[in-house]
Amino acid sequence: MNDDTQNNAPSESYPLLSKIKGASDLRELSQEQLETLAQEIRDRLINVTSVNGGHLGPNLGVVELSIALHLVFNTPQDQFVFDTSHQGYVHKLLTGRNGPEFDGIRSSKGLSGFLSRDESDHDAFGAGHAGTALSAALGMATARDATGSDDHVVAVCGDAAFTCGITMEALNNVAESTKRLVIILNDNEWSIAKNVGAISKYLNELITNPIYNRLHHDFGSFLKNVPGGDSLVKLGKKAERGWKSMVVPSSLFEKFGVRYLGPIDGHDLPLVTRYLEFARESHEPVIVHVVTKKGKGYKPAIDFPERFHGTSPFAIESGKSNGSAKPTPPNYQDVFGKAMVKFAKADTKKVAITGAMPSGTGLIHLSNEVPEQFYDVGIAEEHAVLFAAGMATRGLRPVCAIYSTFLQRAFDQIIHDVCLQKLPVVFCMDRAGLSPNDGATHHGLFDISYLRMVPNLITMQPKDEDELVDMMQTAFDQDLPAFIRYPRGAGEGVTIKDEPKPLTIGKAEILSDGSDIVIWALGPMIKDALALKKKIEAEDGLSVGVINARFIKPLDTELLLAQAKQCRLLVTMEDGIRTGGFGSLVAETLSDEDVTTPLVRIGWPDEFVGHGDSVSDLRARHGLAPEDMLANIRAKLKTVDV
Amino acid sequence: MNDDTQNNAPSESYPLLSKIKGASDLRELSQEQLETLAQEIRDRLINVTSVNGGHLGPNLGVVELSIALHLVFNTPQDQFVFDTSHQGYVHKLLTGRNGPEFDGIRSSKGLSGFLSRDESDHDAFGAGHAGTALSAALGMATARDATGSDDHVVAVCGDAAFTCGITMEALNNVAESTKRLVIILNDNEWSIAKNVGAISKYLNELITNPIYNRLHHDFGSFLKNVPGGDSLVKLGKKAERGWKSMVVPSSLFEKFGVRYLGPIDGHDLPLVTRYLEFARESHEPVIVHVVTKKGKGYKPAIDFPERFHGTSPFAIESGKSNGSAKPTPPNYQDVFGKAMVKFAKADTKKVAITGAMPSGTGLIHLSNEVPEQFYDVGIAEEHAVLFAAGMATRGLRPVCAIYSTFLQRAFDQIIHDVCLQKLPVVFCMDRAGLSPNDGATHHGLFDISYLRMVPNLITMQPKDEDELVDMMQTAFDQDLPAFIRYPRGAGEGVTIKDEPKPLTIGKAEILSDGSDIVIWALGPMIKDALALKKKIEAEDGLSVGVINARFIKPLDTELLLAQAKQCRLLVTMEDGIRTGGFGSLVAETLSDEDVTTPLVRIGWPDEFVGHGDSVSDLRARHGLAPEDMLANIRAKLKTVDV
Repeated sequence: MNDDTQNNAPSESYPLLSKIKGASDLRELSQEQLETLAQEIRDRLINVTSVNGGHLGPNLGVVELSIALHLVFNTPQDQFVFDTSHQGYVHKLLTGRNGPEFDGIRSSKGLSGFLSRDESDHDAFGAGHAGTALSAALGMATARDATGSDDHVVAVCGDAAFTCGITMEALNNVAESTKRLVIILNDNEWSIAKNVGAISKYLNELITNPIYNRLHHDFGSFLKNVPGGDSLVKLGKKAERGWKSMVVPSSLFEKFGVRYLGPIDGHDLPLVTRYLEFARESHEPVIVHVVTKKGKGYKPAIDFPERFHGTSPFAIESGKSNGSAKPTPPNYQDVFGKAMVKFAKADTKKVAITGAMPSGTGLIHLSNEVPEQFYDVGIAEEHAVLFAAGMATRGLRPVCAIYSTFLQRAFDQIIHDVCLQKLPVVFCMDRAGLSPNDGATHHGLFDISYLRMVPNLITMQPKDEDELVDMMQTAFDQDLPAFIRYPRGAGEGVTIKDEPKPLTIGKAEILSDGSDIVIWALGPMIKDALALKKKIEAEDGLSVGVINARFIKPLDTELLLAQAKQCRLLVTMEDGIRTGGFGSLVAETLSDEDVTTPLVRIGWPDEFVGHGDSVSDLRARHGLAPEDMLANIRAKLKTVDV
Repeated sequence: MNDDTQNNAPSESYPLLSKIKGASDLRELSQEQLETLAQEIRDRLINVTSVNGGHLGPNLGVVELSIALHLVFNTPQDQFVFDTSHQGYVHKLLTGRNGPEFDGIRSSKGLSGFLSRDESDHDAFGAGHAGTALSAALGMATARDATGSDDHVVAVCGDAAFTCGITMEALNNVAESTKRLVIILNDNEWSIAKNVGAISKYLNELITNPIYNRLHHDFGSFLKNVPGGDSLVKLGKKAERGWKSMVVPSSLFEKFGVRYLGPIDGHDLPLVTRYLEFARESHEPVIVHVVTKKGKGYKPAIDFPERFHGTSPFAIESGKSNGSAKPTPPNYQDVFGKAMVKFAKADTKKVAITGAMPSGTGLIHLSNEVPEQFYDVGIAEEHAVLFAAGMATRGLRPVCAIYSTFLQRAFDQIIHDVCLQKLPVVFCMDRAGLSPNDGATHHGLFDISYLRMVPNLITMQPKDEDELVDMMQTAFDQDLPAFIRYPRGAGEGVTIKDEPKPLTIGKAEILSDGSDIVIWALGPMIKDALALKKKIEAEDGLSVGVINARFIKPLDTELLLAQAKQCRLLVTMEDGIRTGGFGSLVAETLSDEDVTTPLVRIGWPDEFVGHGDSVSDLRARHGLAPEDMLANIRAKLKTVDV
């Protein structure tokens, strides 16, 4: 890569890329120029993500594939559906989004790190959760057929998408739903971590096992039997290299009625282009198996694929993270992961399950130290929870470590399998609250509300990382499903006790006494509550109590009612959506007991929250800045006889 | 079957069955006696379901399979996990539940119509939703391996389970998770309706295509290579018939690392028994493909497999339903289905999707009359919703007709795909409220709460079947996701207008004025509200208003607040769980506006609701009988200055 490239000088540093306004510009480039363009794109990806962070590895892997897609198809008439869509950066660069908005990707001033229908007509379908592309694309293709259009729909799926049940549900329906659908299987053998499971193994066999190579047909004769194939045959010698490896009668995909092509080298642009041209003309659903290298073109990203899947800002030369100089407290995920190691070592019945996220959840520690009590089931949240439920029936004490937003996938399993049967599965939900740079698809704002309605469960949120470990102990001590939610990122920097102390179920903690206003806060909102207390006591001359609610379910109703009857204003503060959330629970409780103490419910409003620079940035944009919260409380105070 | 069999005379009518207290009794029977037993079981199933209703067809199909399972395995040490578990009646009869509790199955005095861990140690895992068995069984097998036990885990899956993503997620993990798991693929080519999709087609090919038969290996030589096989080889001649068709190198399942055996005739008891003995001794995961006939042994159930999948009481001779003499109003599902036909005929963009339930949802009418605008995707709720989302991006107006409880499966797709992208998918949720005979896995009590928190959507509930059609029109007129919930069973018998009348979004309907108490009710609770009004006005001398809330989201806040400020008591009535539900929304709204009018929230308490005779039976058992509701209101009145 060119060291002199600069984020803020795109036209000079990226002479070819800066001229690409759309696919028609691409088609005017020679093969040599296209290769230069690919290099410019890689430089641009590296430069921008070195500043903003982002999904560098996946995007470096799909540079040629994305160019080929735009050479062969015409968006927005043709539609691409990218699975998970964090690999859409190149697509963005090629569809008129190479300006300052790309420099600021994932920040408040820039593009989303995912595709978004609001952002561009070229983004046919947004995503952030895995496994949705094939299913959505099938809906589009079916609608196209129904309305008599003749454009193309292309689903771009990573191999990991096939560990995900929805993809398989869709695959089961492809052949009955449409005759024309192009599926790209972008196989880099990774989801976020190295892929697991039988399908991954099977795909690897397709690539490496000589038995499949023996089965390869002659590309030319195959083409002659397919409408539109003739024009490709005319490519003659140029296509020769591709023919040999083009057609494998793969029983897995062909059992599903989908023609399989490949595997091919996904970095060979002319080859990928020819295959896509062939797929485009096909009159049956086609899967093109493209083998790519995550991180292609940037050595640190190849050497550390998991870290560069989604990277924080880094130094380009070394690939090292731009960590701040002062030491930050350990992340919640690492505290969880290390505590899990201790619990597992002390009791072989305690095991943990991740859905393809050993690093993100912190279970990498368990995977390294007690691998026999660690399970990675792939991107398969429904199975993860049911697998845990099955284990729990046999006396194991499984922990499902799944981000709040991804646990939405297992909502039915939580109700129908775990809670109805009172199976003691422990759920550790990281990324409860905001995931600022990722945005709407990744925030964990719904879990308080969606868990609160389910009978037979316990939900907790710790005030700091030491209390997280106490809550894990508390959860293990119960014979009920238990959920612990905690935020993304650094803890509070408190010392973690050698021995966790189990908490009394349903008992809140009084952090600070106060008689005029009492604030019931959860998790990271406690700090804000304490700051508000200070300000209100100083400026308004009122005494403010602060409670660490600890338990969302069961709520400490006794303490709440006692305080509500004595104080003049109650405030709830939660990092979740207000609708149906913790404040709603408090409102229900007061209403049931005819306690009319005024209540201010602070939480996220009834709208989706996009991406931004930080928690405070997004809070400010949605009316949750400290001054907003203060104003909110003071406005209510005016209606109260204080 | 014997016409002289009687429900209440089991020991005389079922001489063999009545002596079976467990598997050891089974093993003392001769082959001939086992066949007589199978006949007695069929008689018992037919007699009991003719009175109680129930899943007759599926159970008639698994009589021999269930006997074989108990001949070969030892529950509760060995564990059976039945997918969906409505086919567990025979298993119940063979595990000590052949008494009066079986006579009363699905009623308040009898067994659950599904397996239940609370009911018996022999029920290792409960279910009512499809596709969970393989995943849960894998958890159990893994836990068994981890704890060093040597018992067996058997997952009994219908072929329809393989249309369901969770099963495929589990299948992808089987080979990595355990070396010992027996999977029964009980293939009757039906889920509830005829199965759809590529896997179903593939299984059918396995059964019928001569190419597979040519591939069959010699059973005997295969057995010699497998530990434990020798003892089976000794069966000699007796096993001969089975050998020829035993081993098919089926690429689909074997790609997943699971040994495939079959297909075999699932009604040939000695054959099934031998295969299960072989599978039991296998040291790799094994799938046994058993072909069964839904309804086997009872002609009406064979002739009408969909109606006898889950039947209402019927006359044994004719198979005809025991309909009541007086005409009942049409069911909500039929009103929905017929209205859908009209909408579809008037506009080709309006299409509808079911997950394997054309009859249950009422879409059978559309399927018959406008098949090109009808889609059955199999038991695949996640795909159903994503498929609709994809269609909506292309200008179609898809309707997802999914029962409330099954829509829990698509919770993430509702949030992440439909609502985040504001795609105008219409959701018609039948079975909102109770499904009394089915019980906990089938009640639709959570949807008000789990939808209320999601931004960008509209949720409605009609007071009668005519308003249902108005709400469909209203939903189609919006450019947002819209949800309509309505109960199981008969409508109110009102006339359905020729032309539906769209409703004003977010506006409630005043059904009856009243100044002291105002009741905001939803759907079928409106009738109860009107009855309460009558009673309270007569006995308590208070004036009671009744509001048809119509919209849960957006709520008619204006009317609510105006009334709340004038009346002395507000009451909400909903057929959903109280926690986070409609009453909770009202409590939030009042709290936010500092309106302190006392509120009684009537709805289902924070517990799972089992099965029972009827809505009123279950209401009475959970504190929701008319007199309970009245007492509840009167108790609150005492605290109010009226």
